[in-house]
Amino acid sequence: MTEPSTTFISRAGRLHAEGDATFLELARRVGLTLPSLCGGRGKCAKCTCRPQGPVTTPTPLERELLEQDELREGIRLACQARPLGAVTLTLEEETLEKGGYTEVAITPEPLVRKAYLELPVPALHDDLSDVERLEQTLGRNVRVGLEELRALPALLRQEGFRVTATLWDHGEAGDELLTIEGGDRREELYGIAFDIGTTTVVGYLIDLNTGRELARASRLNGQQPWGADVLSRASHALETATGVRDLQRAVVDTLNQIIQECCATVDPRHVYYATVVGNSLMHHLALGITPATIAVSPYLAVTREAVQLRATELGLALPNARVYFLPLIGAYVGADTLAVIMATGLDESAEIRLAVDIGTNGELALGSRGRILACSAPAGPAFEGAAIRHGMRATLGAIDRVRLQDDVQVWTIGDIPPRGICGSGLIDALDQMLKAGLVSPAGRLLPRPTLEGRLPAPLLTRLVEGDHGWEFVLSREPSLVITQGDVRQLQLAKGTILCGVRILMEELGVEPSQIAGVSLAGAFGNFVDKRSALGIGMLPSTIPAERIQGVGNAAGQGSRMTLLATSIRRRAEALARRVDYFELSKHPRFEDIFLESLAFPE
Amino acid sequence: MTEPSTTFISRAGRLHAEGDATFLELARRVGLTLPSLCGGRGKCAKCTCRPQGPVTTPTPLERELLEQDELREGIRLACQARPLGAVTLTLEEETLEKGGYTEVAITPEPLVRKAYLELPVPALHDDLSDVERLEQTLGRNVRVGLEELRALPALLRQEGFRVTATLWDHGEAGDELLTIEGGDRREELYGIAFDIGTTTVVGYLIDLNTGRELARASRLNGQQPWGADVLSRASHALETATGVRDLQRAVVDTLNQIIQECCATVDPRHVYYATVVGNSLMHHLALGITPATIAVSPYLAVTREAVQLRATELGLALPNARVYFLPLIGAYVGADTLAVIMATGLDESAEIRLAVDIGTNGELALGSRGRILACSAPAGPAFEGAAIRHGMRATLGAIDRVRLQDDVQVWTIGDIPPRGICGSGLIDALDQMLKAGLVSPAGRLLPRPTLEGRLPAPLLTRLVEGDHGWEFVLSREPSLVITQGDVRQLQLAKGTILCGVRILMEELGVEPSQIAGVSLAGAFGNFVDKRSALGIGMLPSTIPAERIQGVGNAAGQGSRMTLLATSIRRRAEALARRVDYFELSKHPRFEDIFLESLAFPE
Repeated sequence: MTEPSTTFISRAGRLHAEGDATFLELARRVGLTLPSLCGGRGKCAKCTCRPQGPVTTPTPLERELLEQDELREGIRLACQARPLGAVTLTLEEETLEKGGYTEVAITPEPLVRKAYLELPVPALHDDLSDVERLEQTLGRNVRVGLEELRALPALLRQEGFRVTATLWDHGEAGDELLTIEGGDRREELYGIAFDIGTTTVVGYLIDLNTGRELARASRLNGQQPWGADVLSRASHALETATGVRDLQRAVVDTLNQIIQECCATVDPRHVYYATVVGNSLMHHLALGITPATIAVSPYLAVTREAVQLRATELGLALPNARVYFLPLIGAYVGADTLAVIMATGLDESAEIRLAVDIGTNGELALGSRGRILACSAPAGPAFEGAAIRHGMRATLGAIDRVRLQDDVQVWTIGDIPPRGICGSGLIDALDQMLKAGLVSPAGRLLPRPTLEGRLPAPLLTRLVEGDHGWEFVLSREPSLVITQGDVRQLQLAKGTILCGVRILMEELGVEPSQIAGVSLAGAFGNFVDKRSALGIGMLPSTIPAERIQGVGNAAGQGSRMTLLATSIRRRAEALARRVDYFELSKHPRFEDIFLESLAFPE
Repeated sequence: MTEPSTTFISRAGRLHAEGDATFLELARRVGLTLPSLCGGRGKCAKCTCRPQGPVTTPTPLERELLEQDELREGIRLACQARPLGAVTLTLEEETLEKGGYTEVAITPEPLVRKAYLELPVPALHDDLSDVERLEQTLGRNVRVGLEELRALPALLRQEGFRVTATLWDHGEAGDELLTIEGGDRREELYGIAFDIGTTTVVGYLIDLNTGRELARASRLNGQQPWGADVLSRASHALETATGVRDLQRAVVDTLNQIIQECCATVDPRHVYYATVVGNSLMHHLALGITPATIAVSPYLAVTREAVQLRATELGLALPNARVYFLPLIGAYVGADTLAVIMATGLDESAEIRLAVDIGTNGELALGSRGRILACSAPAGPAFEGAAIRHGMRATLGAIDRVRLQDDVQVWTIGDIPPRGICGSGLIDALDQMLKAGLVSPAGRLLPRPTLEGRLPAPLLTRLVEGDHGWEFVLSREPSLVITQGDVRQLQLAKGTILCGVRILMEELGVEPSQIAGVSLAGAFGNFVDKRSALGIGMLPSTIPAERIQGVGNAAGQGSRMTLLATSIRRRAEALARRVDYFELSKHPRFEDIFLESLAFPE
């Protein structure tokens, strides 16, 4: 009989996983996260897939959650089904954030390491203490905390002085002993890189010996009940006595769910290091620091410096880990932007580069290994589908590509009937509507009578009058439309970003032609059609499309890089001091440039 | 009316205290601790004194606790009575450990300091975080822990950005913020130096701004129920599951009682730093580390290095303090000996010096600013009055001086009727008995018949036969005797110390004449008659008596020095590595020299 094995065909190419486990787990092992809300507990029925080849028979749970039709067509739940031989599985949407599989090309040299030690057994002629015995064998000073001092003598003697020490590197000051275990446990050395977004929180479990990603999990930020955007969260924190605590606990709960999911096959006691990036508000709230100073004029952080502490101090379920929060750039440009700058190499680039991170907030950085300017461009959540009539996040069933010719053609994530429109679909639609003349350069969705005779009939019939003016029907069944209000929301959002880019260029004294590359980071940035983005004027239209690149979750990538390499941690700290934090609204020509930026390209 | 003031006439000289307070409190202010068991709560009636001058009338408590006769003679309780004008008070026993008043001649430069800061108020043009605001005003990096980060923004704004920061100096790495308070609180900067003895624990409350001692308290080590000596304590720790925890809690309780007493007039939240010296076993037990490796061959410490931690980690009632345990020299030569070496200046001396610390254990150090050798000389607790028929500690009523001429003459502490004999009294008695021929050089208490005609009749009548041989009556009412057993105990104790001194001299290659000075540290060393100590052969008899000096509680003094000066902390750490730890019993001629050392000088 053939050994079970699975080949995943994904946007990231063909990835191969050996072994008997659920497809969800096997996907995880090769760095793919299937859509799942329940974390593989067989509750959400989101992880549907169609494996080709010999597989296990449907479980009672699958029979309950899937339709008879689906089961007949070979649709299965990835959290239940397992391969029985060589199986192929084609993925439509391989990760929630659709970042695909990325291998971090960094030689691991983390601050934490394990050393297997065969210590000399105490003899009558020697006068070394247990700690000195460790130090002598290691050839380094070792600082030992109270708990380890108490455990050390018994453990050393039980284990015949053959132990594995987990050590935190304090440079010239020597090492700090995090834990000590019997025998050779060097292989179990893990870290987790977190990216705390306002909407989504992602965690990457990394083998610190090899740099390999072992698991990845993402969850909606548990702070959602207190609002979708940072300002509603800040309001809750400021207006109620328990606000900061509520929000801190909510995000820590989310992090703990991610830890639990990532640690399905490893012991969380062997996770020794975690890194965290996030915008300034997420940073403060995760630490339980009031966001009052960020939210209220003159808008300042309580601290912008890197913060390191024991994971348990925050309530994280990592008993032996240290957590490192990367530094912030400013009150509205956080560690996430810092991470994007590092992940895209902007700070080491000889040429001028632009990084645009569009999440629930927008942040921009422009510069090179010389000067770097960064600012917040509060585009709002329109690109995430929020405040849009039929907007939705980029998950299964979202319209993510639109073409207008004689009629409308739409594509959805997962090739299933459309459920709504996600950011890349919205920008595509707007770009196509502008090109077709459905929307004027000033942003007016033109009424059908005006367009009569100028457009193919099928398109014209899609213009209908709604309660608040004209609407354009993208899908009839179900009915999904773009409203005048949607166009205005997108116009404000793209205008804000263009305004930010222009002001940064003016401050740095560069022309669009001098920008050697544009990195679009974040869930949205990775999947937006670059030409459509240029088409709606989100970026200066003279930037050639081929210079624009989607870079996926670059903030998460920066968090992973920091976890793996001490040099990158130093780079982050130096960078935070080096980047010039700039407030758009303080620029003397802000209003002027903002209004100019609202217009769509002619 | 004259302002109230009190002049204390003590062994330390005349000390003057201004102000209206109880005599107990006034004495404390000038560094004297009156005998008191209840800490001034008017319960123990131990703090009797006879103030001369205008004083308050007796309180109901005094009328209850003192006899009519006493009150008529002007005897008062120091914890109740207060001066009304210029008062003189002569003290018989000014401190429990009789160390007298010692001023530490050190310019305070502790690791912790307070800075009053008037921070620039945030303005629209500035982008400094609260932490950066602190750092900029201080001109140093400041590491801020989670708790302080959470408290900082509200406090700064409530206090109009005028605050006092308590800072721990981490050298080039900058400062660590321990606490932050509103307004100017620079004056409230205190530290406590502890000396944890096997028998007695002492604490000194020090004003870290001035170096002045504000209070001093001592308590019997709460580990007493588990035995008087280190080995019985170690046995308890090893033989029961909760042993280490029992002993740790007991000593922490003692430290907390001392903290409470010392902090009668200051808030323990303003104590930011504590130093601890103690022998290796006390060190391990206070930290909750098993003493198994010390107690069992090959007799090694778990750690000999300095340990610093938060006071709350140990359960100490000092919410904001860091506790620093000075390093150990070896498994049986602890931080107390290290402190004695520093307090006596042995490690900075150009000439060879000897330090002898006799507590429940004996420790010896011999050397100079060149090489230093240290060893344990386990003399046992005989010099503390333990294992001696009528032995007692050096407190009120103890015979502390004995002279034999035609008859016996004894002096007691406090000039009250004798209750027992303390170490210095025992050595005096033995020396006098040797000189009178009552005890042979081999240590035999000679029977009366042998001595008939060779001694004055009153002395002869003091030789009586007891159940276990001849006894010498020091006092008839109450009956206090020196037995043959007592002589043997003292002989073993003095022999152990002499043997240690001889072996160290041999190892270092020095003759008695080359020893420029001998420091006798500890409660006992301070009050022993040097000539008597030479007389019984506790030290090489060729050392001139004038080179021998009592130095009081030098271990406590070393703890205080470390508290006050960062340079002394560095000196301690370097010294711990530099001192050669030597085990007497490993010397090839140990038995030989020990037996030789047992004989009394002819």
